Amino acid sequence: MAGSPFGWIDEQERVRRGAGLVRTLRPRPSSNPLLDLASNDYLGLTRHPEITGGAADAALRWGGGATGSRLVTGTTELHAELERELAEFCGFEAALVLSSGYAANLAAVTALAPHGSLIVSDASNHASLIDGCRLARGATQVVPHADPDAVRKALDTHQGQAVVVSDSVFSVDGDAVPLAELARVAREFGAGLIVDDAHGLGVLGDGGRGAPQAAGLSGADDTVVTVTLSKSFGSQGGAVLGPARVIGHLVNTARTFIFDTGLAPAAAGAALAALRLLRREPERAERARAVASSLHELLTAEGLQAVRPDAAVVSVRAPSPEEAVRWAADCREAGLAVGCFRPPSVPDGISRLRLTARADLTDDQIAQAVRVISRKAPDSAFIARS
Amino acid sequence: MAGSPFGWIDEQERVRRGAGLVRTLRPRPSSNPLLDLASNDYLGLTRHPEITGGAADAALRWGGGATGSRLVTGTTELHAELERELAEFCGFEAALVLSSGYAANLAAVTALAPHGSLIVSDASNHASLIDGCRLARGATQVVPHADPDAVRKALDTHQGQAVVVSDSVFSVDGDAVPLAELARVAREFGAGLIVDDAHGLGVLGDGGRGAPQAAGLSGADDTVVTVTLSKSFGSQGGAVLGPARVIGHLVNTARTFIFDTGLAPAAAGAALAALRLLRREPERAERARAVASSLHELLTAEGLQAVRPDAAVVSVRAPSPEEAVRWAADCREAGLAVGCFRPPSVPDGISRLRLTARADLTDDQIAQAVRVISRKAPDSAFIARS
Ligand SMILES: Cc1ncc(COP(=O)(O)O)c(C=O)c1O
Ligand SMILES: Cc1ncc(COP(=O)(O)O)c(C=O)c1O
Repeated sequence: MAGSPFGWIDEQERVRRGAGLVRTLRPRPSSNPLLDLASNDYLGLTRHPEITGGAADAALRWGGGATGSRLVTGTTELHAELERELAEFCGFEAALVLSSGYAANLAAVTALAPHGSLIVSDASNHASLIDGCRLARGATQVVPHADPDAVRKALDTHQGQAVVVSDSVFSVDGDAVPLAELARVAREFGAGLIVDDAHGLGVLGDGGRGAPQAAGLSGADDTVVTVTLSKSFGSQGGAVLGPARVIGHLVNTARTFIFDTGLAPAAAGAALAALRLLRREPERAERARAVASSLHELLTAEGLQAVRPDAAVVSVRAPSPEEAVRWAADCREAGLAVGCFRPPSVPDGISRLRLTARADLTDDQIAQAVRVISRKAPDSAFIARS
Repeated sequence: MAGSPFGWIDEQERVRRGAGLVRTLRPRPSSNPLLDLASNDYLGLTRHPEITGGAADAALRWGGGATGSRLVTGTTELHAELERELAEFCGFEAALVLSSGYAANLAAVTALAPHGSLIVSDASNHASLIDGCRLARGATQVVPHADPDAVRKALDTHQGQAVVVSDSVFSVDGDAVPLAELARVAREFGAGLIVDDAHGLGVLGDGGRGAPQAAGLSGADDTVVTVTLSKSFGSQGGAVLGPARVIGHLVNTARTFIFDTGLAPAAAGAALAALRLLRREPERAERARAVASSLHELLTAEGLQAVRPDAAVVSVRAPSPEEAVRWAADCREAGLAVGCFRPPSVPDGISRLRLTARADLTDDQIAQAVRVISRKAPDSAFIARS
């Protein structure tokens, strides 16, 4: 095997192993005994009978797959319905559904940053936005995290088309960008704004309409929003929302839209069911935020270093990658699933536990989770103890 | 609206409109009255009750979505089962399932072409492979289509790691790369080989095991295969197959794997059902090829310029983009759905009708399709008439 052209992988693997950074997959059973604070199922909908029923009905009615590109055979009336209702819910003129949130971000950034344009991108943006910047013809300038002044300075150096690209809520720390201010800066320079609301949809805004709605950006002709159907909506897929001219442009030019098979009907059906349920039960969004606040308060009261959550993600600092891994493993042993983020999945090299609030967690479950996390924490994870 | 930062789109739209190249979406109803020769449902499985049932059961049992990255909560036992059976079916050591074939190609190419390496890429490769090359740290050299000698020359100029990247069957013309020869050339230079078998899986090889199996490459330690679950398998998703070391490397480094939500359970369930059905009814693969041959023979007998199919795609030349669009529209009026590929979706600027064979087409349906295509063809589409 030494002579294999892929032999160089073994050396990288050894280095990774030495640094305690090897990742392996841990398949979960269908009835998971763990208390889940690791998934992005913020509204607790992925197992809801209306959502699983929506998926099942759509598969039985429309087939197992979309059968082709959205431009050929892959657009069903179900896709069109989902796009109409999503656009209306978030308050944008039009929407376009893609096979993942990742694909939606690649599509939006590449299609809206042509040759000669400037992309101003937050340093903590999601990998899919970063890959979008890399694939786009425009030039990218990365600016410090959540810093509208830095965005202003970047835009000020450039003549011609520009677009500002940012997550609304950042996936690692769960903090929000000051979106209204960012939009003001973009407008000042006539730049477009692309907001990835993956962690805002379903959680922020009126009844979960998202961070852009909360910031008064719904329907703005200079704002494009990407969302994913895989978090609050308990399904799979992504979408781009914005002015009809932008959506038409994506249909004609975005490679991850044109050259990709349409979203499977089951995923479209599940997302549509989630959207309709959220319209009927808008209090779910508020509850997800309340659960996150409570987690943060209780963890902070224990002396742990939790970041104040702007949406449903609560991040807790760990002293090192090894201790983060051990901490998460100990929680799991004690019946609690938490996320563990470490290099290279964190922008700043700091490892964390990542907890996600779910609207369907009870107060007892929250208290239990905090107890486990605190009990299993390494000593150096606490601020107050010394 | 003139002052909008996205106003520049309108001018592009005008140009596109003038050239007759505007694409719009045409949502289809659930019971489509058209005879379908446009989808990539090569084995006719997407509406098969075992496949739709597989999707529905998985959604009901596992939920509407995977709820997180495959590295966090997004790996279910269903994903693991699909990976095991896929790897075994195609004869590779391991497999990794991603949310789309597009994502699988981005993952394979970026992870296997590190800084300093050379990527040798066929000029007609799929958009997702091309985007993979653009995102990879290695340098890309594009070589003439299906030309192992050109690959040899490219490899000969380079010292160090190299990887050869090619579709097995090209999506536009349906022609195959001389895969065994390509593999020989790669081996001669100690280069790795990445084969995108999106249009080979389910159609080529013993019982649909794919083009790499047909070329004797199953299990080779220098070969990595990407497939999609969205064509022959009637579902959504993609996979990378190869040596366990390569799959482990992808788990640890591939951004479209790490930073993307896992494939929805319904899609995994549908694909697994399709795989099991194909194992039981291997003759479906052969039938898809026979249908394609028949389409080609009959169209050629009519005097149309059809490319001899190497798998299930039959491409027919059209004189111009406008005539291609009109031809496809006239077929549709007459009850037949065919694909229409034109710039910028064709590598060489030549517009085509793209017909796909399905294993479940009857001889009568084939004859009927050929009648409609021939009757609706523009005069200049025929070779023999003058
Ligand atoms: C901020 C952000 N954007 C985009 C994505 C990608 O969405 P998806 O997983 O649906 O592809 C994710 C997570 O996966 C995310 O956290
Ligand atoms: C050759 C080839 N590779 C990859 C893909 C992408 O697969 P998917 O549509 O499942 O993302 C396609 C078509 O969509 C294709 O034709």
